[in-house]
Amino acid sequence: MGKDKQEFVAHITPREEDFSRWYTDIILKTDLVDYSPVRGSMVIKPYGYGIWENIQEELDGRFKATGHKNAYFPLFIPESLLQKEADHVEGFAPEVAWVTHGGNEKLTERLVVRPTSETIICAMYAKWVQSYRDLPILYNQWCNVVRWEKTTRPFLRTLEFLWQEGHTVHATEEEAQEETMKMLEVYREFAENVLAIPVVTGKKTEKEKFAGAVSTYTIEALMQDGQALQAGTSHNLGQHFAKVFDIEYLDRDGQQKYVWQTSWGVTTRLIGAVIMVHGDERGLVLPPKVAPVQVVMVPIAIHKDGVLEKANEVFDELKAAGFRVELDDRDTQSVGWKFNEWEMKGVPLRLEIGPKDIEKNQVVLVRRDNHKKSFVPMDRLADTVATLLDEVHSGLYEKALAMREAHTHIAHNMDEFKDALENKKGFVKALWCGDRECEDSIKDQTGASARCMPLDEEPWEGNCICCQEKAQHMIYFARAY
Amino acid sequence: MGKDKQEFVAHITPREEDFSRWYTDIILKTDLVDYSPVRGSMVIKPYGYGIWENIQEELDGRFKATGHKNAYFPLFIPESLLQKEADHVEGFAPEVAWVTHGGNEKLTERLVVRPTSETIICAMYAKWVQSYRDLPILYNQWCNVVRWEKTTRPFLRTLEFLWQEGHTVHATEEEAQEETMKMLEVYREFAENVLAIPVVTGKKTEKEKFAGAVSTYTIEALMQDGQALQAGTSHNLGQHFAKVFDIEYLDRDGQQKYVWQTSWGVTTRLIGAVIMVHGDERGLVLPPKVAPVQVVMVPIAIHKDGVLEKANEVFDELKAAGFRVELDDRDTQSVGWKFNEWEMKGVPLRLEIGPKDIEKNQVVLVRRDNHKKSFVPMDRLADTVATLLDEVHSGLYEKALAMREAHTHIAHNMDEFKDALENKKGFVKALWCGDRECEDSIKDQTGASARCMPLDEEPWEGNCICCQEKAQHMIYFARAY
Repeated sequence: MGKDKQEFVAHITPREEDFSRWYTDIILKTDLVDYSPVRGSMVIKPYGYGIWENIQEELDGRFKATGHKNAYFPLFIPESLLQKEADHVEGFAPEVAWVTHGGNEKLTERLVVRPTSETIICAMYAKWVQSYRDLPILYNQWCNVVRWEKTTRPFLRTLEFLWQEGHTVHATEEEAQEETMKMLEVYREFAENVLAIPVVTGKKTEKEKFAGAVSTYTIEALMQDGQALQAGTSHNLGQHFAKVFDIEYLDRDGQQKYVWQTSWGVTTRLIGAVIMVHGDERGLVLPPKVAPVQVVMVPIAIHKDGVLEKANEVFDELKAAGFRVELDDRDTQSVGWKFNEWEMKGVPLRLEIGPKDIEKNQVVLVRRDNHKKSFVPMDRLADTVATLLDEVHSGLYEKALAMREAHTHIAHNMDEFKDALENKKGFVKALWCGDRECEDSIKDQTGASARCMPLDEEPWEGNCICCQEKAQHMIYFARAY
Repeated sequence: MGKDKQEFVAHITPREEDFSRWYTDIILKTDLVDYSPVRGSMVIKPYGYGIWENIQEELDGRFKATGHKNAYFPLFIPESLLQKEADHVEGFAPEVAWVTHGGNEKLTERLVVRPTSETIICAMYAKWVQSYRDLPILYNQWCNVVRWEKTTRPFLRTLEFLWQEGHTVHATEEEAQEETMKMLEVYREFAENVLAIPVVTGKKTEKEKFAGAVSTYTIEALMQDGQALQAGTSHNLGQHFAKVFDIEYLDRDGQQKYVWQTSWGVTTRLIGAVIMVHGDERGLVLPPKVAPVQVVMVPIAIHKDGVLEKANEVFDELKAAGFRVELDDRDTQSVGWKFNEWEMKGVPLRLEIGPKDIEKNQVVLVRRDNHKKSFVPMDRLADTVATLLDEVHSGLYEKALAMREAHTHIAHNMDEFKDALENKKGFVKALWCGDRECEDSIKDQTGASARCMPLDEEPWEGNCICCQEKAQHMIYFARAY
């Protein structure tokens, strides 16, 4: 490592020293976000927003392919609407922003800035649903939401964040459950195949489920510091909202019936997950499918005859082949400086091209994830880039999976549980009786919460690690973001 | 016109009878929007949101092609930030929504829900701009904004609306002016080539310009009822914001200098313009480039052997060719009912396919704009569809241009002005001395506001129609939305 590089990466705190500062260093130094003058609200800068645009495009295609359509519902929700569903208001009222004045007038009814849109959407569904012919309704919206959080961190927990929220209405309980699981699977497949993040899919405990849901399903990812992050949730809302909002339909059999509903969402916190799962000592490492720049071209000896010309040719070729490519032709920075900056920014592939390469009709490609170098003949460039990007994706996924496996432990009692959590970090699988008291006690003693009851698990038998009574569930516990 | 059609379209109020009710009938009956429980806020339903998605895609591509990047800034703006620029706060403070409480706490400083984002963005630019090397900054954001309007109409004027706002920072006055005009031209080209809406481009008067701008440029469109609609604006902000937000850079010559800025935006009101420029007695007429469905297929004798099979084949072919196509294979509705519904929804092309067509290896294509029918051999289908969609676009544009030309009048004095406005409707071109008093007087007397000083105009000479003093400007006046 040359002096140049040492100085440059010295700005990033090592992960082992302080993971939290490492995270903050990365998000600020790579221009993903900046702090704003509004407490707890971040500015998403173009490099960060570019990741979100790619996430949106990938997910939106999946939503549409599964029959969903986008719509847009109001930002403001009248207080009376929020209060209709008892669990929902209890969960959200303490953390909403209140609009009390419009222009110079005091409002007769306060408005909530949406923390989530079940209530306003249900008010509309009650109007739109009359007959079984109107079902199902499969809508999604991309929007901003606000939750008045006390402690905030960019991407992970902010006052305002961007997300999508799907809201569907069905004729039967079975259909609603099927939709809930279908969208969970969309999230799992997306997390793994697009973000290269392996996830545990499972069901939330009563304590951890969404305020107003019958059951909440989740995808849970493990960060490199051993903490879990809830990366997406899919809720079966049952008829809770239908009954208080009177969403009824006339069925084929002439009976009026309440509908069955779901909702599901992911947020800009996915970007936080990408950083904390894949990042390394040199900075960001971006999965190719969401990287704003997939290939960065750094010309060597940029002022030598023909170098920039050839670089531009290659740039055009890669662009035409559909890659997100950037040519760094600045003459104000050294080649070494550029290498370091683009590594820090996590670009999956670096393409070097200099006089010697041009002579040999080749370029040099360097992978960000494992720093492997390939010399690639020009005439096979586009294909090789595609292959290497796929390999980076798989490499990231495999590495993250190995990390998770190395940090998933089984605890048969509280001592093992505490030892695993303190000394080995990560997920701790343990048996639980199903009682809220034991769940609370485990959290109090260890700081770990029940992340989920996994969907795919070998058969097991045993007793609750807390009260020793017969266990009802196998739980993935972890400290979590 | 058969009985079926008569009954169906009878639901839409004729334009001549009540243009405003015609508009409301269309937006509700074609499922573009619905009213929400929040005063002045609309729900944009999938068919309306689909138009917005296409508008976004078309514009976003143009923004990126001109070097702009997307970012995201906070929804909330601290009161003290809004108040920094005097004209800006005077213009916006009376019409903002105020957040006064977060959770259960009263805020020490009230927050504004953004009515536009100059102030919060300038606060960030002040932090980001240090040197001439940081310039220009060319950012855009897609988001929601809130203005506490007293009277609202879906799409045209709502409490909350969706828009894009570009915000740029430049080293010189010339660059900022160049950017202002470049984006005005992007809007003009987009309005005409995508929305098929001819527009007058021009500069706003001092009275009508954006609060805080040096000058505002606009594209103005004429609706079928003779009222104008401001369809997009591009502002040269000069150094007004730079000076109060301290956005300074160190120039090459070692001097600290204030930057020069622009901002520009279009909103969901463009959808209102599309409706009011192109709609007819049967309902919506959508320009092909933003229509959520470009070709609707209605099979004839759907239960006859092979019809649905062939229809699905054609559907796949058109879809593969990149068209937004829908196959209406419902067996609950008659063919006549389907024709009427899709006409009302403004789909540019209807494709009919029945046993006789299949025999002849052809389909029938019917244009929405002029109801012309073509019999098209299967093997030339995709090409013909592309050609016909282009023809629908041109047809709509030509018709709208002819309408505008027929409703653009010249007035040499107040009598002619009033006569034109009352009896002929539309734009009235007239000379003006440049004094605010005359502008106000014309508005008071006629209800017409100065829409803009056109950019391209023949030379003229004469006196103000109001005070008879020597004229300084030629103005397009109109009553406006």
